[in-house]
Amino acid sequence: MRLSELFAKTERRPPKNEESKNAKLLEQAGFIQKLSAGVYTFLPLGLRVLNKIENIVRGEMNKAGGVEILMPSLHPKENWEITGRWQAFDALFKTKSNFGGEYALGPTHEEVLYSLLKKHISSYRDLPVYIYQIQTKFRDEKRPKAGLLRAREFRMKDLYSFHANDEDRDKYYEVMKKSYVEIFKKLGLAAIPTTASGGTFSELSLEFQVASDAGEDTIYFCKKCNLAINKEIVGLNSPKCSNCAGPTKEIKAIEAGNIFPLKEKYANDFNLNFKGEAGKEKLVSAGCYGFGTSRVMGIIAEVMSDEKGLIWPNEVAPFTLHLIAVGESPKVKKAGEKLYADLIARGGEALYDDRAERTAGEKFAEADLLGIPLRAVVSEKTLEKDSVELKERNSETIRLEVIKTFLEKYDK
Amino acid sequence: MRLSELFAKTERRPPKNEESKNAKLLEQAGFIQKLSAGVYTFLPLGLRVLNKIENIVRGEMNKAGGVEILMPSLHPKENWEITGRWQAFDALFKTKSNFGGEYALGPTHEEVLYSLLKKHISSYRDLPVYIYQIQTKFRDEKRPKAGLLRAREFRMKDLYSFHANDEDRDKYYEVMKKSYVEIFKKLGLAAIPTTASGGTFSELSLEFQVASDAGEDTIYFCKKCNLAINKEIVGLNSPKCSNCAGPTKEIKAIEAGNIFPLKEKYANDFNLNFKGEAGKEKLVSAGCYGFGTSRVMGIIAEVMSDEKGLIWPNEVAPFTLHLIAVGESPKVKKAGEKLYADLIARGGEALYDDRAERTAGEKFAEADLLGIPLRAVVSEKTLEKDSVELKERNSETIRLEVIKTFLEKYDK
Repeated sequence: MRLSELFAKTERRPPKNEESKNAKLLEQAGFIQKLSAGVYTFLPLGLRVLNKIENIVRGEMNKAGGVEILMPSLHPKENWEITGRWQAFDALFKTKSNFGGEYALGPTHEEVLYSLLKKHISSYRDLPVYIYQIQTKFRDEKRPKAGLLRAREFRMKDLYSFHANDEDRDKYYEVMKKSYVEIFKKLGLAAIPTTASGGTFSELSLEFQVASDAGEDTIYFCKKCNLAINKEIVGLNSPKCSNCAGPTKEIKAIEAGNIFPLKEKYANDFNLNFKGEAGKEKLVSAGCYGFGTSRVMGIIAEVMSDEKGLIWPNEVAPFTLHLIAVGESPKVKKAGEKLYADLIARGGEALYDDRAERTAGEKFAEADLLGIPLRAVVSEKTLEKDSVELKERNSETIRLEVIKTFLEKYDK
Repeated sequence: MRLSELFAKTERRPPKNEESKNAKLLEQAGFIQKLSAGVYTFLPLGLRVLNKIENIVRGEMNKAGGVEILMPSLHPKENWEITGRWQAFDALFKTKSNFGGEYALGPTHEEVLYSLLKKHISSYRDLPVYIYQIQTKFRDEKRPKAGLLRAREFRMKDLYSFHANDEDRDKYYEVMKKSYVEIFKKLGLAAIPTTASGGTFSELSLEFQVASDAGEDTIYFCKKCNLAINKEIVGLNSPKCSNCAGPTKEIKAIEAGNIFPLKEKYANDFNLNFKGEAGKEKLVSAGCYGFGTSRVMGIIAEVMSDEKGLIWPNEVAPFTLHLIAVGESPKVKKAGEKLYADLIARGGEALYDDRAERTAGEKFAEADLLGIPLRAVVSEKTLEKDSVELKERNSETIRLEVIKTFLEKYDK
């Protein structure tokens, strides 16, 4: 993509109406734009990052046997009354039809999925099933001041697994745990599996926490085992690590994902049962596996950035290469255009700063702000050696590389 | 995908709580499931169709220079008061935060995009821009009884183009017209460009109408020119064709897309102006280009189906091949598994009915209901000739083809 085609402009300074680092950076760099507190538009670069995160998550869910669907956001009041959450769920947005009927705006989808599955599950032969969606969710947050970390409208992957018994559910829980570890590895994000409270559903859940001072959670972290326990379920003092019995450190962290057994709670509410092998009716046992895809975009901005701007991991960067032509001589312009065309022809993902009206300094500063992993510059000087000047966003080292060699890396 | 992995079951009979053909068929075949009036879940096969439709639309929007973003569904009341539509827009769902503030649930996005663009457009050099999204929209429809044709929650592509003058906007209007023609060609859907009222925005708009008795619109259609005029803007009698002056025929049709100039209406409301080349401030001139992606899924079900079930065009079919193994002999089972694996390895999109508990007749009936374009059967009989039996959904002809020849078509 050419920067000249990108309507979304960067700003010289962070926005004044944001408190959080992720929102300041992402807005200044033109990835997102605030509509109102906790409600953001994903601009072209931001949408590309979000799509990449969601495709990584989708790939791992598919590998784990997940089947993708898309559930609605308008949930009938009746469904939420069945679970008692029409009243009990604090952050529920509600709306009314002019023609009768009320809806909740879906913040989670048990109320929809359990009622949907009554048609499809009747025998042990119908189990297990693993169903997920990647979708927009709504929560009436009291203080939506943390940018993408705590928004009123946000994107999320939620998978629900349904089983004939608890053993099978526990087995799949381990499968999902591995999927989550794999997702964070692909995202290039260090996540700490953290034992936490299961809320109303179960004794325990497993959170994937990312260490950050911006976090709302306090966890006791064992670096050696990469494990932690959430402060909410321990006493006052730092506990020993549950694995190595070594000391833990108290740190702030942001929850990026959360998996926990729903057990038979909603199956009981919706009377979702099945005929077992012996012919006896049983309630379906379930697990729930959430992952905040837009929140993870915010987390990456929080923990992977410096005073100059964002630093995207390669796998989720909006583009993998930021190409800059410096100088307005016909020779440089022609070389820049040719290099861009050659990259695109090879399937490279390049953002090309082809704008004539900016100085080299402005272009470099903007490249740092946008945080694309690799910067390639063509100028009179580099062309003397048929080369591009390469610099990784995450390093100060600058090196020349012959254009031909550089392009060969993009050969399919 | 294996049918044994697909949790969503088909029904022997159409659902009783639906009136429209598209909902009856799509629900019976397990593509969608009703949550409440006008609110549907897209089940795995339905989501695949929806994604294919949206990707075709996305491809054409990108070709036309469109830049994709994702705007929120929670729109602050203040934005809708600026245009006067907080009161004037009939079908607006509204919700309140418990912490102050009201929102509209976005049925269209002028109120968001114009306010967003004030930051990005200030000079003629910032124009033109073409911005689109593919996203979930909400409308409080009075009678949501037409399945996906008139839903309360639905999917839509909306592109907005912004120009320095009307001539440039009119030129892009022609570009979009061609994009829409191309989209319908790719979808395999005959759409009739139809002159209609521009509503509050402009004298005229262009609708893309699909002939169907289920349609709510009446149009005067010239078959020779593939053009029509909507009854709403002509008098009582059939007018002549605007192109060839020949006779037109009164038919029922469903609107699948609609493009019209917004002119300066919202630029005026939001004071979205720019400095022209001569330094004078001017209002931005805009166009709006809508396309109902989930509605088009409903239209296809309405117009491409027979008494046995759905008939998907190849480009939007959930899979392009429906593979069936008939008989439970180890030889047939092995051949079916091998053929499925070979197809997948070649990048083929196959749905494999590997279920042991169904009869051949049940499997064939279900294949007709699902409407995948090509059915391939392996049985003792076909294997005697190392062949598969092929039948197109849209034809009664059955032919044998040697497996090797059949597979070669899927070679990448």
